[in-house]
Amino acid sequence: MTDAATLNAVLNRIDANMPQAVTRLQALLRIPSISTDPAFAPNCRAAADWLVRELQDLGFDAQTYDTPGHPMVVGQAGADQGPCLLFYGHYDVQPVDPLALWHNDPFDPHIEETPDGAVIRGRGASDDKGQLMTFLEACRAFQAETGTLPARIKVFFEGEEESGSPSLVPFMGTHADLLSADLALICDTGLFQGKTPAIVTMLRGLLGEEVVISGPTKDLHSGLYGGAAINPVRVLVKIIASLHDDTGRVTVPEFYDDVEELPDAMRAQWQALSFDHADFLGKVGLSQPAGEQDRTPLEMLWSRPTCEVNGIIGGYTGDGFKTVLPAEARAKISFRLVPGQDPHAIRDNFRAMVRAMLPADCRVEFLGHGASRASKMATTAPAFEQARQALSEEWGCAAAFVGSGGSIPVAGHFKTVLDMDAMLVGFSKDDDQIHSPNEKYDLKSFHKGIRSWARILARLSA
Amino acid sequence: MTDAATLNAVLNRIDANMPQAVTRLQALLRIPSISTDPAFAPNCRAAADWLVRELQDLGFDAQTYDTPGHPMVVGQAGADQGPCLLFYGHYDVQPVDPLALWHNDPFDPHIEETPDGAVIRGRGASDDKGQLMTFLEACRAFQAETGTLPARIKVFFEGEEESGSPSLVPFMGTHADLLSADLALICDTGLFQGKTPAIVTMLRGLLGEEVVISGPTKDLHSGLYGGAAINPVRVLVKIIASLHDDTGRVTVPEFYDDVEELPDAMRAQWQALSFDHADFLGKVGLSQPAGEQDRTPLEMLWSRPTCEVNGIIGGYTGDGFKTVLPAEARAKISFRLVPGQDPHAIRDNFRAMVRAMLPADCRVEFLGHGASRASKMATTAPAFEQARQALSEEWGCAAAFVGSGGSIPVAGHFKTVLDMDAMLVGFSKDDDQIHSPNEKYDLKSFHKGIRSWARILARLSA
Repeated sequence: MTDAATLNAVLNRIDANMPQAVTRLQALLRIPSISTDPAFAPNCRAAADWLVRELQDLGFDAQTYDTPGHPMVVGQAGADQGPCLLFYGHYDVQPVDPLALWHNDPFDPHIEETPDGAVIRGRGASDDKGQLMTFLEACRAFQAETGTLPARIKVFFEGEEESGSPSLVPFMGTHADLLSADLALICDTGLFQGKTPAIVTMLRGLLGEEVVISGPTKDLHSGLYGGAAINPVRVLVKIIASLHDDTGRVTVPEFYDDVEELPDAMRAQWQALSFDHADFLGKVGLSQPAGEQDRTPLEMLWSRPTCEVNGIIGGYTGDGFKTVLPAEARAKISFRLVPGQDPHAIRDNFRAMVRAMLPADCRVEFLGHGASRASKMATTAPAFEQARQALSEEWGCAAAFVGSGGSIPVAGHFKTVLDMDAMLVGFSKDDDQIHSPNEKYDLKSFHKGIRSWARILARLSA
Repeated sequence: MTDAATLNAVLNRIDANMPQAVTRLQALLRIPSISTDPAFAPNCRAAADWLVRELQDLGFDAQTYDTPGHPMVVGQAGADQGPCLLFYGHYDVQPVDPLALWHNDPFDPHIEETPDGAVIRGRGASDDKGQLMTFLEACRAFQAETGTLPARIKVFFEGEEESGSPSLVPFMGTHADLLSADLALICDTGLFQGKTPAIVTMLRGLLGEEVVISGPTKDLHSGLYGGAAINPVRVLVKIIASLHDDTGRVTVPEFYDDVEELPDAMRAQWQALSFDHADFLGKVGLSQPAGEQDRTPLEMLWSRPTCEVNGIIGGYTGDGFKTVLPAEARAKISFRLVPGQDPHAIRDNFRAMVRAMLPADCRVEFLGHGASRASKMATTAPAFEQARQALSEEWGCAAAFVGSGGSIPVAGHFKTVLDMDAMLVGFSKDDDQIHSPNEKYDLKSFHKGIRSWARILARLSA
């Protein structure tokens, strides 16, 4: 139970302590916790340890938990009564390549003035270190102002979100009591069109597959063998080129069989958002939606499944030219999935399709990189309306229920493993360049994000 | 004019001095003269300087000549009368990646006993340092035994053969007097089926093209943009997949219009060679010819044009997974050309075809990597029969006139720029792994190659 005067005092304290909050975020951003590259495992552990110390400073009973991959961080604190809320974030970040395109060291975060206001720039500023710190800073202000938190709060940070979260579900299963709560809060999403606060109610799932095609036992000279020997790059590109038809639809068998069509009510709600797709694409140098030709851009992004190539390599790729027929070629392919689609069935059908296209003398190896279903949130729970009101107050405009093209598998896991609903609130912007060079987070997002969580906690504990 | 006794003395001297010859070859192989990578430019110069010193030791008037790229080496020596012969070789080598597949340092050459005899293993052992040294060692034996050479000999070594020879034709044009001779000798080809000495009378040309497709102004998150934003990797693979039809024929417009069909007499001669394609492909783990379905393997390799992908890269290619839509994707594509085909016309048609397939919001950039016509040799010149007899004597079996799938553009340039015929004699084997890890050269090839050149020089000067 938080009265208006207390909330005001908490908000004022947040405003007054912004410089220190930025300094703390910079300290976390300096740790290069790239989870997908084993070379950075010690840095991932350093980030986890840093968070434990922060939580302990805030009065949390917190510690790391080892996993076969990077450690989990779990802490709890707060009132003995009222709701129990579990906040989730991830302390790991994406790789930084191509490093040459960064204007500054990705792990030396600095404040930069831009025409749209000040930003903090560095890998993880927006995804997800800046976002997770909004919640910790809101807790810090409550703790400092009231000596406690307005609800029983658990925090849960993982370090494998950017690398398929292999340890997440097993950890949830073996630590169900530690993690159980009335509602999960997740801060890994954005403002709608960069200005409207939003609660994400629909997320795509993700299936990652690496395909390795091999042919000759070694690289061959394209003059001595070209014309007679099979080229694995040609085999691979032919397979990839066949994954879409001319209308942009994915050709994997049964891919669309279980896709749920968007309910009319939600389509109407999305249309009311007046999404500016020309601006959305224009900001990245594009003019035309490139997906399924019979869908609106917002439908493509939020409610339709995709198949994309995230990486391909084969043969000589350095400077100059090398007349080689490579022994092997590989591609990383991902599918974004929507409600109804079963990632395991799609994986099976995809692999069978690839195997069926394989010519004589070639072999294929598959490496799985995660498989998660899409999520739909239970927006009728009262907490969703309470959070919507808190966000509307803070941002001075009506907060929206939106979809998201991204995949946050943990939202689905909270439901299936721990039977908890999840609410996704976040403050990133489309131009934050997450997963790209020169990632940034607006200081306004950071500041109003902290204030937003303070208001949400006050509402949820009322 | 070399009499039989003199030739025998020269051959005996070659046999006696083999250990020193191997030591000299090892010294040259230790220089990492990778021409395609600018980082190795000083090493290319070091290899050129090494050759100049060797030539001067042999009594040649020799020096390096600077070019915009790597230096040329030219030297001359020998009798004032008799024919003037120009020997060509290249001192540059291919890159060594993937380095992990080498069993030893590629630039620390060592002698290794194998079931097929002793070999010297290292980058360039066969292509082309070992081969070019066969000629120098033959000259050395003549010089030591007779105090001169049996003909007027020029040597011409370039350092850009593995990177498209950009300086070659301009250098030939401005140094025509320096290089002019009655016949060019080239040692960059192999024994037929690893045992029959051969003179190559037909070589494919080579057109190298690098295609760079770009779309969004930066790498994008495949969740936030996937389905609406265009993916340059998908655009590139669709283009590459369209370069061949289902029967293996290249689809570039007018590609086959000027292809000369193989003369019946040559087809008959090739059939008489009893080429063992099962063994040829089996040695590299393949079982079926993968080219045009209505051609024999030897026709595919020696007389039919090809289009191959030599390298492709786009997006995230490191360990793990990154859900990125890359801003750019690139491929290195080469065409092997046969007599009649014009590389410049094919380049134009290829580029027009790619541009025509480019979707909205994508751009394409082309980087040219060399364009050379195929060559047919004037086998009716007496020198061809003299060399064939010399080779037959040395190897104890009838030497063959053969084709080659590789491209040695210099052979064509000698004709078009300097109006000289070229004769290609070489001693490499199909299993030499040129352009691949663990390249080697049989010591038997090296030894009998030196002896072969001694016999050829004796015949040509008779």
